[in-house]
Amino acid sequence: MKKKLWVIKIGGNVLDDALSLEIFLNDFSKIKGFKVLVHGGGKIATQLGSKLGIGHHMVNGRRVTDSQTLDLVTMVYGGLINKNLVAKLQSLGCNAIGLCGADANIFPAKKRLVVDVDFGFVGDIAVDLLQASRMQLFLDANLSMVIAPLTHDGQGHILNTNADTMASAIASVLAAEYDTELIYCFEKEGVLDNQEKVMVELHEQQFDKLVSEGTILAGMIPKLTNSFSALHSGVKEVRILQASALMDVINGSLDTGTRVFT
Amino acid sequence: MKKKLWVIKIGGNVLDDALSLEIFLNDFSKIKGFKVLVHGGGKIATQLGSKLGIGHHMVNGRRVTDSQTLDLVTMVYGGLINKNLVAKLQSLGCNAIGLCGADANIFPAKKRLVVDVDFGFVGDIAVDLLQASRMQLFLDANLSMVIAPLTHDGQGHILNTNADTMASAIASVLAAEYDTELIYCFEKEGVLDNQEKVMVELHEQQFDKLVSEGTILAGMIPKLTNSFSALHSGVKEVRILQASALMDVINGSLDTGTRVFT
Repeated sequence: MKKKLWVIKIGGNVLDDALSLEIFLNDFSKIKGFKVLVHGGGKIATQLGSKLGIGHHMVNGRRVTDSQTLDLVTMVYGGLINKNLVAKLQSLGCNAIGLCGADANIFPAKKRLVVDVDFGFVGDIAVDLLQASRMQLFLDANLSMVIAPLTHDGQGHILNTNADTMASAIASVLAAEYDTELIYCFEKEGVLDNQEKVMVELHEQQFDKLVSEGTILAGMIPKLTNSFSALHSGVKEVRILQASALMDVINGSLDTGTRVFT
Repeated sequence: MKKKLWVIKIGGNVLDDALSLEIFLNDFSKIKGFKVLVHGGGKIATQLGSKLGIGHHMVNGRRVTDSQTLDLVTMVYGGLINKNLVAKLQSLGCNAIGLCGADANIFPAKKRLVVDVDFGFVGDIAVDLLQASRMQLFLDANLSMVIAPLTHDGQGHILNTNADTMASAIASVLAAEYDTELIYCFEKEGVLDNQEKVMVELHEQQFDKLVSEGTILAGMIPKLTNSFSALHSGVKEVRILQASALMDVINGSLDTGTRVFT
């Protein structure tokens, strides 16, 4: 029987609120077995960028990364956020290790080609180059990886990469070795229908319709396409829920949030 | 027979100069066998701090670290410098992994007690808590550790820590397992005598005299006390030299710099 692996992604709403973050990390540290935490950026990069006069330019929900912005996110995601998460998890008895995609070459990527928009130093994960063994080394040593949303191009450059996509890719590449569950924690209780109620289940076949009728908004689309992609790659279960519900869902004491199906 | 391990520390003069850094990383990537790179901070943290209005206060050659400065060095040392070094080494075929002392709990430390000066969030390595096995995991996997000068207090806080001391501690803790050589790369060709000539050898018994007569200046003292400490802990060889001479020394084709003896 394969061993259980949790891949959990937290977004800015958890990172930006000290109390939510404390509760989340406490919960995460208590999860038994193999676990990976993928974090986004939160407002810290934007706030620091504005102090430094570095603009903040988004297209289709993704930050455009010029060289100044790349340095900014490398500092904030790879340093400030990542290392503080690791130090806090260590204090909670969770042996964490903070990594970005360049470390141990866990996330080779390619700089996104310019089609309509030049996203700058943004990386698309080179899925064909991913190797489970590079991550298993850490899991086998009972280290909980804390992953910053940065990859590298193999030419010496860090690339800014979507954290949802990285979480999906980690779950996908490890699905052959572990009984893998991917959980996206975000600010709402789950994916909401047009009555603002949580959809308990969301099936891939509903997706196009929900997008076209405007029930699923732009910001939610990448999270869902990443969810479907993970399921197609053998990830056993994907859920989208509020961070505060995490432990109840993991313990099986509460069935909340949205479960995604292909 | 024990396997050879190189622990190499680079300071700001290498980090601050793009060409020197390129040459150094090229050399480092070619070193055969086990190797660890410890990096300092350079001018980047100071420059960024001044843009952000974060003051820069040194006492006895060490930065005083208030909470803003701690965030600054966590970003710059743990993120910007560390991750870019790793990405560049990866492009040179060196499988590097960037770590700070909180990662995998490799460097437990204690916040420095206030005696005459309050250094703030500065960590003194808890030598009795260091474990070679935490670092051997990476070396055994043929990963070259790239270490940022940050430790943690086990209570959830990152601490700013002297990079020379970290290099000495790494070499010391691994000396029982590996035939370990510690090399400090700095801006001069070696430790200079009162004629400004490189001292080929420097013995611990000369040290007090050289300090009292002013030949060895304040900035050099911690590097030498760290060198003696490493030798007392079983490190086989300690050298202080210019980064540009590294490969010649490693290849044995040139005997330059200062070799330190107890």
